[in-house]
Amino acid sequence: MGLPSRVKIVEVGPREGFQMEKNIIPTEQKVNFINQLSQTGLSHIEVTSLVNPKRVPQMADADELLSSIQRVGGVSYSATYLNEKGLERAIENNVDFRGKLVFSASNEFSKANMNKSIDEMFAGMKNWIKIYQNVSVPVSQIGVMAAFGCNYEGRIALDHVMQLLQKAMNIAREHGEMIHQVRLADTMGWANPTQIKKTIFAIKNKWPHVDIALHLHDTRGLGLANANAALEEGVVEFDAAVGGLGGCPFAKVKGAPGNICTEDFVFLCEEQGVSTGVNLEALLECSKMAEEMIGRELPGHLLKGGLFTN
Amino acid sequence: MGLPSRVKIVEVGPREGFQMEKNIIPTEQKVNFINQLSQTGLSHIEVTSLVNPKRVPQMADADELLSSIQRVGGVSYSATYLNEKGLERAIENNVDFRGKLVFSASNEFSKANMNKSIDEMFAGMKNWIKIYQNVSVPVSQIGVMAAFGCNYEGRIALDHVMQLLQKAMNIAREHGEMIHQVRLADTMGWANPTQIKKTIFAIKNKWPHVDIALHLHDTRGLGLANANAALEEGVVEFDAAVGGLGGCPFAKVKGAPGNICTEDFVFLCEEQGVSTGVNLEALLECSKMAEEMIGRELPGHLLKGGLFTN
Repeated sequence: MGLPSRVKIVEVGPREGFQMEKNIIPTEQKVNFINQLSQTGLSHIEVTSLVNPKRVPQMADADELLSSIQRVGGVSYSATYLNEKGLERAIENNVDFRGKLVFSASNEFSKANMNKSIDEMFAGMKNWIKIYQNVSVPVSQIGVMAAFGCNYEGRIALDHVMQLLQKAMNIAREHGEMIHQVRLADTMGWANPTQIKKTIFAIKNKWPHVDIALHLHDTRGLGLANANAALEEGVVEFDAAVGGLGGCPFAKVKGAPGNICTEDFVFLCEEQGVSTGVNLEALLECSKMAEEMIGRELPGHLLKGGLFTN
Repeated sequence: MGLPSRVKIVEVGPREGFQMEKNIIPTEQKVNFINQLSQTGLSHIEVTSLVNPKRVPQMADADELLSSIQRVGGVSYSATYLNEKGLERAIENNVDFRGKLVFSASNEFSKANMNKSIDEMFAGMKNWIKIYQNVSVPVSQIGVMAAFGCNYEGRIALDHVMQLLQKAMNIAREHGEMIHQVRLADTMGWANPTQIKKTIFAIKNKWPHVDIALHLHDTRGLGLANANAALEEGVVEFDAAVGGLGGCPFAKVKGAPGNICTEDFVFLCEEQGVSTGVNLEALLECSKMAEEMIGRELPGHLLKGGLFTN
């Protein structure tokens, strides 16, 4: 099967990468970094999290950050939020967002990460739809965390994921909404290429009108092998983090470190003729900048391996 | 296309990994390490290099090492050699080897690495065949270095590789030898999955009786994506280095660091139902041992990401 001619990359480094840093990064540095990222050709940057600063101190400057960055035409700037208050802040800050329903395919991870069981997450969906409808935003996305495996539960069965997706689609439809995109997150880095292909095939087969986006982690080294498997199945939207931000390579703890590295993924794509719109040299400069900001080496390969420059 | 049911892994860590270490690793440690590797289910271990100790001081103990390790039935122990003297030492040390013809697809790399042009390497093949014939060893392998790309020359064209392979096959046939295996090395980590697939397809299409083995580097992060592409094309023999030995993750120089990591590759295979015969827990213990021996963190992911152990 041929690869797609182009893909869209959502740069999640500033949000997913910085949230786990203990040392507070000065807002000015973040602004410079995001302004630099805006010049690389990336079309979507997840800037920050609109969460309680007491729980995530690194994100206390979210509103200031969103008002300080120089927004470039053609680039989407988004922020994550977990509740209605966060959504209100997103709207106030003129952030790009879409109505979405989110759940975890692992019950244990759901409880650990969101303090709610899968059932409780589903019970809250009706309210989320109402919130989006109140601000006239269509609910078009489903996000599935731990869609492939989980450090608590091991492998997640495809049938289970399909049933949960069906249930969420039904809830959307019952409230007059139509899902157009499913975002699958391999939150703890358990997916393998065969599983990726089977999962995408099953979803496309059942809901041909639905686009799939992938949020992959490189926890066990299969990140780009999984991304390539998804490219082969026609997936054209991927989250990635510049330099592989989001994981501390020296933290020998189980968890969810390490999104796939944006520049390595761009290299994977461009070397195979898949256009990303991203200037790799400019992106590598951002990666160096990120290393300086967090004060340690990032796991991305291309920064060390280098590009061919004759 | 289905994946193969099993693959053979050639563990090259002790040779390719240690040769670049500046601090001399005590022979006893190497012996222990290789004895541990012998207990993991790996069926082939490349132990050392039979080269001039003045040029590679780390390999000065090659003969002692080969006579000290506890050889386990069913495990092949090999060593690299670059000249007739090295081959003689291999025979004296009762090392497993096959007759092979080696060249680089990049002329600049050939000159830099072997101090000989491609033409000079080909001119020497007749002599190599004679050497093998003198010891009654059939010449059955061709090894191609820099088969996909090169830090000096950039992308290597498939046509060029095919012409060189044809030439080497002809030389073998003219001397009554038959090539059964082609080992393609992505010496400097330039391959991508599409290129891997196209190359394997072209070789299998032209020489259906020839098996392909791959020696992949993870220099630019595509190592396991490339390995998976090769699995999909039916390749069943791969070189890999435990922990990703062979590259210093902190050396910001262009070069050829980092074989694909054995345990990450085993994980890629086993998670997809491809049997490797390797006990992953035992292999991870070897990886920890290697980190202690060289005194720094290795780039392999699984050692940090961890296995699912409930």
